[in-house]
Amino acid sequence: MYNQKLALLVAGFWGISMAIPSCKPKNETNVISSGAAEKTYVAPGKYDEFYNFVSGGFNGQVSVYGLPSGRLLKIVPVFSVFPENGYGYSEETKAMLNTSHGFVPWDDQHHLELSQKDGSPDGRWLFANANNTPRVARISLTTFKTEEILELPNSAGNHSSPFCTENTEYIVAGTRFSVPVGDNQDVPINSYKKNFHGTVSFIKVDSVSGRLSLAFQLLLPGVNFDLSHAGKGASRDWFFFSCYNTEQAHTLLEVNASQRDKDFIMAVNWRKAEEYVRDHKGTASKAPYIHNIYNEKTQTAQTTTENQVMVLDPAQLKDFVYFIPCPKSPHGCDVDPSGEYIVGSGKLAALIPVFSFTKIQKAIGDRQFDGEYGGIPVIRYEAALYGEVQKPGLGPLHTEFDGKGNAYTSFFVSSEVVKWNIKDLKVIDRKPTFYSVGHLCIPGGDSKHPYGKYLIAYNKITKDRYLPTGPELAQSAQLYDISGDKMEMILDFPTVGEPHYAQALPADLISKNSVKYYKIEENDNPYSSKGEKQAKVVREGNKVHVYITAIRSHFVPDNIEGVRVGDEVYFHVTNLEQDWDIPHGFAVKGAANAEILIMPGETCTLKWTPTEPGVFPIYCTDFCSALHQEMQGYVRVSKAGSNTPLIFSTNLADSAVVKN
Amino acid sequence: MYNQKLALLVAGFWGISMAIPSCKPKNETNVISSGAAEKTYVAPGKYDEFYNFVSGGFNGQVSVYGLPSGRLLKIVPVFSVFPENGYGYSEETKAMLNTSHGFVPWDDQHHLELSQKDGSPDGRWLFANANNTPRVARISLTTFKTEEILELPNSAGNHSSPFCTENTEYIVAGTRFSVPVGDNQDVPINSYKKNFHGTVSFIKVDSVSGRLSLAFQLLLPGVNFDLSHAGKGASRDWFFFSCYNTEQAHTLLEVNASQRDKDFIMAVNWRKAEEYVRDHKGTASKAPYIHNIYNEKTQTAQTTTENQVMVLDPAQLKDFVYFIPCPKSPHGCDVDPSGEYIVGSGKLAALIPVFSFTKIQKAIGDRQFDGEYGGIPVIRYEAALYGEVQKPGLGPLHTEFDGKGNAYTSFFVSSEVVKWNIKDLKVIDRKPTFYSVGHLCIPGGDSKHPYGKYLIAYNKITKDRYLPTGPELAQSAQLYDISGDKMEMILDFPTVGEPHYAQALPADLISKNSVKYYKIEENDNPYSSKGEKQAKVVREGNKVHVYITAIRSHFVPDNIEGVRVGDEVYFHVTNLEQDWDIPHGFAVKGAANAEILIMPGETCTLKWTPTEPGVFPIYCTDFCSALHQEMQGYVRVSKAGSNTPLIFSTNLADSAVVKN
Repeated sequence: MYNQKLALLVAGFWGISMAIPSCKPKNETNVISSGAAEKTYVAPGKYDEFYNFVSGGFNGQVSVYGLPSGRLLKIVPVFSVFPENGYGYSEETKAMLNTSHGFVPWDDQHHLELSQKDGSPDGRWLFANANNTPRVARISLTTFKTEEILELPNSAGNHSSPFCTENTEYIVAGTRFSVPVGDNQDVPINSYKKNFHGTVSFIKVDSVSGRLSLAFQLLLPGVNFDLSHAGKGASRDWFFFSCYNTEQAHTLLEVNASQRDKDFIMAVNWRKAEEYVRDHKGTASKAPYIHNIYNEKTQTAQTTTENQVMVLDPAQLKDFVYFIPCPKSPHGCDVDPSGEYIVGSGKLAALIPVFSFTKIQKAIGDRQFDGEYGGIPVIRYEAALYGEVQKPGLGPLHTEFDGKGNAYTSFFVSSEVVKWNIKDLKVIDRKPTFYSVGHLCIPGGDSKHPYGKYLIAYNKITKDRYLPTGPELAQSAQLYDISGDKMEMILDFPTVGEPHYAQALPADLISKNSVKYYKIEENDNPYSSKGEKQAKVVREGNKVHVYITAIRSHFVPDNIEGVRVGDEVYFHVTNLEQDWDIPHGFAVKGAANAEILIMPGETCTLKWTPTEPGVFPIYCTDFCSALHQEMQGYVRVSKAGSNTPLIFSTNLADSAVVKN
Repeated sequence: MYNQKLALLVAGFWGISMAIPSCKPKNETNVISSGAAEKTYVAPGKYDEFYNFVSGGFNGQVSVYGLPSGRLLKIVPVFSVFPENGYGYSEETKAMLNTSHGFVPWDDQHHLELSQKDGSPDGRWLFANANNTPRVARISLTTFKTEEILELPNSAGNHSSPFCTENTEYIVAGTRFSVPVGDNQDVPINSYKKNFHGTVSFIKVDSVSGRLSLAFQLLLPGVNFDLSHAGKGASRDWFFFSCYNTEQAHTLLEVNASQRDKDFIMAVNWRKAEEYVRDHKGTASKAPYIHNIYNEKTQTAQTTTENQVMVLDPAQLKDFVYFIPCPKSPHGCDVDPSGEYIVGSGKLAALIPVFSFTKIQKAIGDRQFDGEYGGIPVIRYEAALYGEVQKPGLGPLHTEFDGKGNAYTSFFVSSEVVKWNIKDLKVIDRKPTFYSVGHLCIPGGDSKHPYGKYLIAYNKITKDRYLPTGPELAQSAQLYDISGDKMEMILDFPTVGEPHYAQALPADLISKNSVKYYKIEENDNPYSSKGEKQAKVVREGNKVHVYITAIRSHFVPDNIEGVRVGDEVYFHVTNLEQDWDIPHGFAVKGAANAEILIMPGETCTLKWTPTEPGVFPIYCTDFCSALHQEMQGYVRVSKAGSNTPLIFSTNLADSAVVKN
């Protein structure tokens, strides 16, 4: 029903009037084969075959699922605070969410990319973008922790991000929302065409440490950059970006950015850009941006502020940026495993254009241009085109590949996934999704060596697929077996946040390197206690530092007196365990803070500002042992200016008694 | 391996030395039957049979799973902020997390109870406790929204909560951590036995609205109350609470609270307590506490402060509170469907005592007491005892029932679930859990009419059960088919937070009443815009109120100028959609806030304090339509004191143009 309505609303774009049927098939359960249960079942004690990293969209996190079970293995907090484990609340992690706008507790995490070696995922890092307050993040795949966040200046709506080059030389970040760039940004909105610009950032990734640095930006016309992918093989030195709103509208984009029959895919020769940077052809742009790095030795994040970025202007510096016309408001911009074919998915288009890298190179060589756009040459559509997939479906969004010569495209409006052959551009199969698929994922499906086997559709609308949970519903994914000629839907699984974009890879690329606990002797947190005898309470003016240890099933110290109203109390809790999966948690009654979860060998700090006298319990919040309930203590708080002596103790039974 | 270590650590409590084997069976996969896949598989388009509400433990939320699939259908934020949908960040919901200590962004959500009618879940409300900063919450099961949070004074570690009486007359809340109660709370911790008290709160539930009010508290000795359950049928007027630390230790409870062979189950005649309250036998205790209510008409939460609670002292007011000895540090306190049998699960006990309500009544009548504890009569163990389950396992924690005369008890240390007969107390079956089960759940399993069929074990340790995700692992649940004589493990499913305690009930008790969207005509939010023509921007001093509408695929207004640095901008976003599952989201670049997700018919408010001049994009964060990417706009911010005129517009194509 709603699909009918939607279809009517947008039908005008395809010149189709009333002929679009409801997209919900009448006999949907017939499409579930009898073997689907066995295909998706992972028996207790068995492991999933693939990790599936799924961006959380509006939850700002990354979620990790197992395939084929669809089970949620972990939520990794990246751009949003996570009260569950103290991310963004502990003194060690607060700095991760600093931006040039201050501390920002949330973002909109749209796309993920696995680090690559020779065009295939290497299992080292996962990159994530923040769409709202433009940033990119690097997540370690040995610890599943966010290790670095880099802000992007001159940018808004960091959507076309964080896709990487074939050997992770760079990740990129393109602005979805053009904004005024430069000294005076307080300009009328209707001066858009004059004052607003898009930018694309190239962020260098250190090949050993993974450390990020903003290498250069391209200053571009005020269009909306949407998605991107690097070339591969012969096209490895190029990056391709889709863009819409080439109309440069600033209001009611629904209508005003849907006027032109073709928008663009932008092709950037990043090797050539590197040469321009090396030759000092860029302009230094003053713009503050924040760089947050989590130091795994001190287990603490630090913020530094950068002030300048090198900007290249392709209207001045020729021969490295080109536009290719692409119908219509393209979303996905996907490169096949060979690197030869670039697929543009125009979400308002009735066909899918496939461009040829060879033809693009020839067109550039032959200068087969249709004028310029914002001073950048526009390659003739036909000169770049390999061919078009005809009548593929309505609302193509994203294409992935199976490594066997097939492409799979998601269709939002006709709510389906469609399999087609890259060479002959013929549609081979189509299967419905429930409902309105956005992105899709095949393990390794955007790499040089796709693993195939499964396709996952990440749907935008859930509606009646699960038991209802009031007006707000979980979003949803669907798993298809693509090992045969025809796709077979085998599982629905709900997701957290918005499952926007995803990456998947074989489990052993990650599992073999997974860290189980932190070695206590390598803990360089300046506030660690490497044994119960190092536990202590130290007053420094109105700051009280509590060095506290946790081990099954007690804290040292567990009785503390002499804290006063007006003090800032820092509980530096070190988990002394040296075994896998024995975390301890820590909380204090009434704290205007989250708890902290401390992994074995780690130190985390909870800041507490007591506001009234009394005796306040502390306790372990992670059920750690048969005597977990007994893992508690008390902190006495006296009124401001009182002379209650500072004492601390745990009444241990023998020589380990700790008292001050 | 770790289980061996653990077992050695705690073995002393059972007088067992080295004989405890590793609890991981050698041939675990053999226990999975070939039909397990089919039993747990819910095909695409089909629904789960049961809702399973699982407390989130240290995430402060409630998660909703479907059974038998184990799929996570929803996370309901209760005691923790939820950047994903703006809970705790929007102006409408901020007040929900106010406490007498200020705004608290996190808590530790331990137990859940479904509202009951005649001793069975009625599908109306779900009650949840906050352990750290003592509170109880009421969640609507028509909207899956937290509607009310009530703080508990004179309390710390609100663990023994929020269990309810047979017709939801009351929910209760008992202190896990005793604390000083009264005027002077700044006392030495080692004055524990003199100054520290436990309390149990009885919270009245309005039978129509569900509205909570703190009816009375019991002032009790300084023990740790752990869990509780109301009587049923003949015992319906009674409530039973387990407690440990009857030693009244205040340090190293691991050792010091494990000295006595027996602690207590406390029996409270709440009908008699009601009489005492009615007869003004209580004492008014001055204690501030907060009451937060979400008004579904104005869609806005408000905080009020209460200042007084009626306290009953059972040492003075006789004949309504009794202690029953119970070996050893009891955790679970569970009442069978008939109401006759009360099961105490002493986590350091080597047997399970089953008490008889009939015998308890007789013992009270005959005054078969073994003296008093804190002025409260202690019933003779044998006088209350129906019998003991011998050699059931190690570390019993919690017992539920299948309605066919069987009880099922979880064992943390021996990591198993054990089925036994309520009448003859013989063990019938035992199955391992992976690993270290805490609570368990059978649909309706703590009610008068259990639905049986499944048992879910909520495990404390995950370890090697899933693909590794670094040091921090998801916790885990396991599903057993209990329809036959022997339990059969059929599924492992990971969980979010700590799956501490759970409730489950047949889907149709809830699904038939689920709200799909909010009627726009019933939206009494004072800042709503019930149509695009009501959209406007109003300046009041330095406050700028933006009344903004969202409908596929534009905002009205979408261009706003005249905001100045130093302003507080309130974006009041009304979602005009009137269809299921068409939320819109809203975010503004750089906001030190979360996004807001606005359900159809709802108004939510995001506060933004711009800190610098510029043009800032706003956009929809929930993929709503084929033109979702176009659903954006701009807000221009000028410097403080500037005279940029306040203007707003959306360049709609026809008569619907909105301009100021």
